[in-house]
Amino acid sequence: MKVDFPLILVNFKTYRESLGQKGLELARAAERVSNETGICIAVAPQTPDLFRVASSVGIPVFSQHADPDDPGAHTGGVTPESLKEAGVSGTLLNHSERRLRLDIIEETLRRCSCVGLLTCVCANTPLAGRALASFGPDMIAIEPPELIGSGIPVSKARPEVVGDSVRLIKGISNSVHVLCGAGITSGEDVSAAIKLGAEGVLVASGIVKAGNPLKALMDLADHSVPR
Amino acid sequence: MKVDFPLILVNFKTYRESLGQKGLELARAAERVSNETGICIAVAPQTPDLFRVASSVGIPVFSQHADPDDPGAHTGGVTPESLKEAGVSGTLLNHSERRLRLDIIEETLRRCSCVGLLTCVCANTPLAGRALASFGPDMIAIEPPELIGSGIPVSKARPEVVGDSVRLIKGISNSVHVLCGAGITSGEDVSAAIKLGAEGVLVASGIVKAGNPLKALMDLADHSVPR
Amino acid sequence: MKVDFPLILVNFKTYRESLGQKGLELARAAERVSNETGICIAVAPQTPDLFRVASSVGIPVFSQHADPDDPGAHTGGVTPESLKEAGVSGTLLNHSERRLRLDIIEETLRRCSCVGLLTCVCANTPLAGRALASFGPDMIAIEPPELIGSGIPVSKARPEVVGDSVRLIKGISNSVHVLCGAGITSGEDVSAAIKLGAEGVLVASGIVKAGNPLKALMDLADHSVPR
Amino acid sequence: MKVDFPLILVNFKTYRESLGQKGLELARAAERVSNETGICIAVAPQTPDLFRVASSVGIPVFSQHADPDDPGAHTGGVTPESLKEAGVSGTLLNHSERRLRLDIIEETLRRCSCVGLLTCVCANTPLAGRALASFGPDMIAIEPPELIGSGIPVSKARPEVVGDSVRLIKGISNSVHVLCGAGITSGEDVSAAIKLGAEGVLVASGIVKAGNPLKALMDLADHSVPR
Repeated sequence: MKVDFPLILVNFKTYRESLGQKGLELARAAERVSNETGICIAVAPQTPDLFRVASSVGIPVFSQHADPDDPGAHTGGVTPESLKEAGVSGTLLNHSERRLRLDIIEETLRRCSCVGLLTCVCANTPLAGRALASFGPDMIAIEPPELIGSGIPVSKARPEVVGDSVRLIKGISNSVHVLCGAGITSGEDVSAAIKLGAEGVLVASGIVKAGNPLKALMDLADHSVPR
Repeated sequence: MKVDFPLILVNFKTYRESLGQKGLELARAAERVSNETGICIAVAPQTPDLFRVASSVGIPVFSQHADPDDPGAHTGGVTPESLKEAGVSGTLLNHSERRLRLDIIEETLRRCSCVGLLTCVCANTPLAGRALASFGPDMIAIEPPELIGSGIPVSKARPEVVGDSVRLIKGISNSVHVLCGAGITSGEDVSAAIKLGAEGVLVASGIVKAGNPLKALMDLADHSVPR
Repeated sequence: MKVDFPLILVNFKTYRESLGQKGLELARAAERVSNETGICIAVAPQTPDLFRVASSVGIPVFSQHADPDDPGAHTGGVTPESLKEAGVSGTLLNHSERRLRLDIIEETLRRCSCVGLLTCVCANTPLAGRALASFGPDMIAIEPPELIGSGIPVSKARPEVVGDSVRLIKGISNSVHVLCGAGITSGEDVSAAIKLGAEGVLVASGIVKAGNPLKALMDLADHSVPR
Repeated sequence: MKVDFPLILVNFKTYRESLGQKGLELARAAERVSNETGICIAVAPQTPDLFRVASSVGIPVFSQHADPDDPGAHTGGVTPESLKEAGVSGTLLNHSERRLRLDIIEETLRRCSCVGLLTCVCANTPLAGRALASFGPDMIAIEPPELIGSGIPVSKARPEVVGDSVRLIKGISNSVHVLCGAGITSGEDVSAAIKLGAEGVLVASGIVKAGNPLKALMDLADHSVPR
């Protein structure tokens, strides 16, 4: 399944609020908002739930991580093939909570590309974003780690981080899409991000732990279109 | 779901032959052999397939790995809670293809125990087995790494490894069950293991890559009862 | 160089106060206190300073870490051979700030033993201490991580941790010496540790960052003999 | 101490032939060749030998690795400050035998720069080289891992790797110097590298394990000047 931009990518992390059946309901809420607004929303459920969610909803499902292991003797590995087979469309890589070695990132991107999985690599700084652009992932998500989960939106607190990232990444490759994340909870934060050149947002606690995730997502989606 | 001993635990690894639908069929073959022979067979499918398999078969399903992360901001983590929620009964830990830090093993065992997941920790040597017994996991699987995938069964090539492990581990705690693995492919290898005091076997390629996994499993199960 | 018990082992960590020339002076202070009191004091300087300190003082010098790599193509590895060659007598392993995989600990202990390096493995809990005893290191240092650098001495705040560790470790092997650490700053803390059965202490900030390290060490040494 | 280009950087790894006193002699041979030829030669001794070598020779001494840890509670860490204090001029980072996380590379480069240590980051591919150029290290050394220690020189077996790397890295920043390595043993290999645009070579076994390292280094140095 392809993604469109602007994209709202919801990282379920391992929150209790996104576990199993609750994760499925959250994914269905995302599907409903996507259908009603026409904005592309992708979800990244917990790993053991991937097949369950991917076989139940009609929106793109991402893994939160992938290993570069090929099909073989790699106990515990999450291979691109196993994700593809589970109906998954893409994967996050190098999230601040699961940082990877540079060579592993390059190799995993290559493996995902072979298998036909979309890739969204996380970067903590604009320079790291530019570095990652070198490998031509589908998306790069800029997230200053200190703002993750803070409720202080990167797009308002550190607009230069978003702007610089867009400029540096596009300077390497125009075909890499730039998302931003960290502290995004409201539609206003999304508007601000899009004005700065971001093509979408990576969100987590702001949606997963919202009192009413459907309403929170609707607010994000409503503000995702440049006016 | 509880396990009984002797136990045959089939690690699907990330082999192409155990991917997705094929993994489900393999699990169903294991279920059939278990039902026909009365021998407990557990399966450890690829991580994205865990819910799919666990919700389809009536035998214990294990994860190949678990992280100690609690429900929270741990992108990509495979938490005990997410496994439990997916219908999983237990988990492998510290397999030679996914070795763990000592403190992480202790913490993950504690977390799994809280959540009610069975644990089978792998050890490469009898002394490592004794060390792990200190933490009171449900099972310890002794596997000399050099024999893994070799087709040379530990129970015949290095019987002293199995015997020493049983003695050392039971010397620490009688309630820890000892399995052995590496190179196990035939019923004879299982008989030999059980004669040495093992309470089951951990198998992988010998079953997953067998021409006829059902027949291969039937052979193992037939030889799992001490005569 | 051999160590005697009770032992005071001073971990220099990477503190600014123990860098280069300052580390050398700290080691000389330790040597002086050792000579005056007859209590064995060992020092663990920063890695690039090992030769410098080991060739300048007449007390045992430890590394803060060792890798299991054999002499060969292991860029950046700190091999047992390179430590031995630098005049080092032993090494810390698995400190809470540098935790290791279980199999790596076993292999590194084996390598150090071959080369003739003493080993002091750190453990965060009495059960981890018992686990490590399985491999027969020369020493095990129990350190509850939450007390490290706290100034709250393990020997007073959690005496049962020390007592349980001594009992469990000696239950596996009488020849493993048990140290304790975390929060130790005064002679009283040392007395308390020794009364609980510890055969020495592992100290760091309490000495390295003391206004007068020589005086602080003298206080520890004076209280290291059971009265 | 500054480096000049063309640069010959000799990585001692943890070879038995470069241990302690032998490492010192190897460094002195490098110093002699450098003095006689006027070509800059830097050496990267084993970590515990850094002070010993740096205080004995008048050529630049590099560490084989550095950690980003600041002076503080980081047992076993090799901090930029501890290297500087030991008289070290620079450090290798991300060697194929010690790969690092992307965020750790960025942070370590920042730390080394603050402290005044030169940096030479290794890359396995031209794209990884371009990625690393983003952070502005002093040098990038391209080394296809499959050729390391092979005796098959990258500059002859895979000239396009060298040429592409130079072009891509200089496209990001003209001030990053490009070295190449892997399989380099003779002066001819060095000439070939320099013709392809490399500004020096990273060598290891070809020198360290040579029957006569001084002669081998002399051959490299003699061919380091473009004719």
